[in-house]
Amino acid sequence: MIVMKNQRLKLDDCVAILERTPASLAALLDGLPGTWISATEGDDTWSPYDVIGHLIHGERTDWITRARHILADESRPFDPFDRTAQFTQSQGARLSELLATFANLRRDNVATLLGLNLTEEDLGRTGLHPELGEVTLGQLLATWVVHDLDHVAQIARTMAKAGSDAVGPWRVYLSILQDRQRESG
Amino acid sequence: MIVMKNQRLKLDDCVAILERTPASLAALLDGLPGTWISATEGDDTWSPYDVIGHLIHGERTDWITRARHILADESRPFDPFDRTAQFTQSQGARLSELLATFANLRRDNVATLLGLNLTEEDLGRTGLHPELGEVTLGQLLATWVVHDLDHVAQIARTMAKAGSDAVGPWRVYLSILQDRQRESG
Repeated sequence: MIVMKNQRLKLDDCVAILERTPASLAALLDGLPGTWISATEGDDTWSPYDVIGHLIHGERTDWITRARHILADESRPFDPFDRTAQFTQSQGARLSELLATFANLRRDNVATLLGLNLTEEDLGRTGLHPELGEVTLGQLLATWVVHDLDHVAQIARTMAKAGSDAVGPWRVYLSILQDRQRESG
Repeated sequence: MIVMKNQRLKLDDCVAILERTPASLAALLDGLPGTWISATEGDDTWSPYDVIGHLIHGERTDWITRARHILADESRPFDPFDRTAQFTQSQGARLSELLATFANLRRDNVATLLGLNLTEEDLGRTGLHPELGEVTLGQLLATWVVHDLDHVAQIARTMAKAGSDAVGPWRVYLSILQDRQRESG
């Protein structure tokens, strides 16, 4: 099996995804009936609503904060990222508000990223992750991108599973319905 | 594990997804660099470009055609659906053209679906699938929806994997990168 895997993503290729994610998620989710928005894959899994709150928290505390941490040559590790902050910080808001907040934060963060005028050399600069050890700025930016795509896939998979009984015999053709049947979280 | 699964999807809930998919995919994909568009998960797997061609073929030959087949009380099975027609029918077109074609066909098909003024009783009417046997119109419509979401997830997963080496140590946190590592197709 030959898979195209890039050892590095170019900055432009990162930005191309980062600037598209909010509009893609808004087009998919804004105005959907609540049955779709609040569906999960089971106990301790996240609904589309929860995921948007999680993406917002990342824009506020993770990606750009850590990029600046690396560029400042900080020797202490990054602050840990709270992966469940959305359950205390965004509960109660309407989904359309959360989607707008995510879009605004992302637009500002992409502008900040571009304003850093990063060089190839910068992308190789390193910081200390509290659990993973040494990581590069380039890896941080690629992770920002793949994290977006991971959560887009999660949202689509979660909503697909809400229809898994309704498809009847077609279930055998819809491979997404078999993904992560035993997983939680 | 308690998962919200609906035995049936309401027609409005189906339409809510069907009418959103083209705009969501266009917002994600239109204008992306070719490295994203042509990425696959390995031999015999599809790129985002291939998936859009496949969705177009479904709009042309599958969903509405089969709904009409059921409503006409045809006793012969549905015509088989060619799941790889995109490799002969849409090669060469630009992705932005394919996205526009998909959006136009879907808009027309959703209008046709709504124009059928389906009742609950209609949703229980049956047709004969060439491989799966008896299926209901409600199951066909739910499958149309879940099929959309399956392919949205596939596109996001495929693009995520194109960045799987670039994320370095973060790979362990990005669960999407481990999905379907041995599968093809």
